[in-house]
Amino acid sequence: MKNQILKKSIDLFDDKGFKETTIQDIVDQLDVTKGTFYYYFNSKQEVLRDIHLEYIEGLLQEQEEILQNQTLSNKEKLYENIYLTLSKIDTQGKEARIVHRELRHLHEDHVKQIKLKRKEYRLNFEKIIDEGKKTREFSNHIRTDILAFGFLGMTNYSYYWFRTDGELTDKELARFYTEIILKGIEEVPVKEGI
Amino acid sequence: MKNQILKKSIDLFDDKGFKETTIQDIVDQLDVTKGTFYYYFNSKQEVLRDIHLEYIEGLLQEQEEILQNQTLSNKEKLYENIYLTLSKIDTQGKEARIVHRELRHLHEDHVKQIKLKRKEYRLNFEKIIDEGKKTREFSNHIRTDILAFGFLGMTNYSYYWFRTDGELTDKELARFYTEIILKGIEEVPVKEGI
Repeated sequence: MKNQILKKSIDLFDDKGFKETTIQDIVDQLDVTKGTFYYYFNSKQEVLRDIHLEYIEGLLQEQEEILQNQTLSNKEKLYENIYLTLSKIDTQGKEARIVHRELRHLHEDHVKQIKLKRKEYRLNFEKIIDEGKKTREFSNHIRTDILAFGFLGMTNYSYYWFRTDGELTDKELARFYTEIILKGIEEVPVKEGI
Repeated sequence: MKNQILKKSIDLFDDKGFKETTIQDIVDQLDVTKGTFYYYFNSKQEVLRDIHLEYIEGLLQEQEEILQNQTLSNKEKLYENIYLTLSKIDTQGKEARIVHRELRHLHEDHVKQIKLKRKEYRLNFEKIIDEGKKTREFSNHIRTDILAFGFLGMTNYSYYWFRTDGELTDKELARFYTEIILKGIEEVPVKEGI
């Protein structure tokens, strides 16, 4: 039942917005009483916190698998991590939209908790860049922190414009972003004087 | 008086949020009556629309100057456009936060109007990239639209983390971002076999 409440809340929060959804709306959809709701959650905000937590913890877990995968180069890890973020637009679109829109409706303590986990995700991303610098896959002249922010900005912004039913897949987009940053876009002159 | 109402509303919307600010709050701060407010605006939403419009129209105007500046190469235009966006965090921080947070509180028609202007900003950015491809400053192998989205994502995301009182200036950040994308971060091997 807890999962059903979460699932239905995700539908409603995405559709109507968190503030506009009442506990009554949630239990009506599930055909249960408010008592059932309060058996699992103390408030609507607790449901929102759980949606946030499940989302970021899922990301962290998959990111950990990428980090630990010793068959991948750091370039491949960078691509995989970017793809991981983008793939959620397709596989967890509703949750993704909710966590991008509804952070400020959480209690202060929960905001802190979520922000710490988001920071962990960013710092793990930095680990890949730092490792790649050590192995000389990446150049040392770019600051790791700025690069990580830049990457996360690119990918997070995609939630606003990228549609998985368009001409471009999330895999292709991840490849484009990785390529842009790895290769740069400056035209390299073929030969002096040509 | 119209400008004073706008200015005070910007302070209040940034501080308390749009929804939590009342017209009474605004007129109290200015020590005028509600009648004065309604002489200039039909609603609080109209004030928000004007804040949005002034912000994006200011950006478009400055972007136009960059586009028209024939002394700049396309690489320099790219840098100047990125710097333009980032510099607003310092010079129009409150407005920047409001327009990033409070789009959904606008009337539908106003949202359309603002989104059209944002699109214009993005398409102008694409013009710089396309021009740079023609002059062979930029490589032709990267899609213009994705690159523009990527750049805008990087810079827009900076509103969430970049502080102008930190160790890094907005000029430096613009330079870093331009460099990351232009040069790429892949380590170029010095010599075969080394």
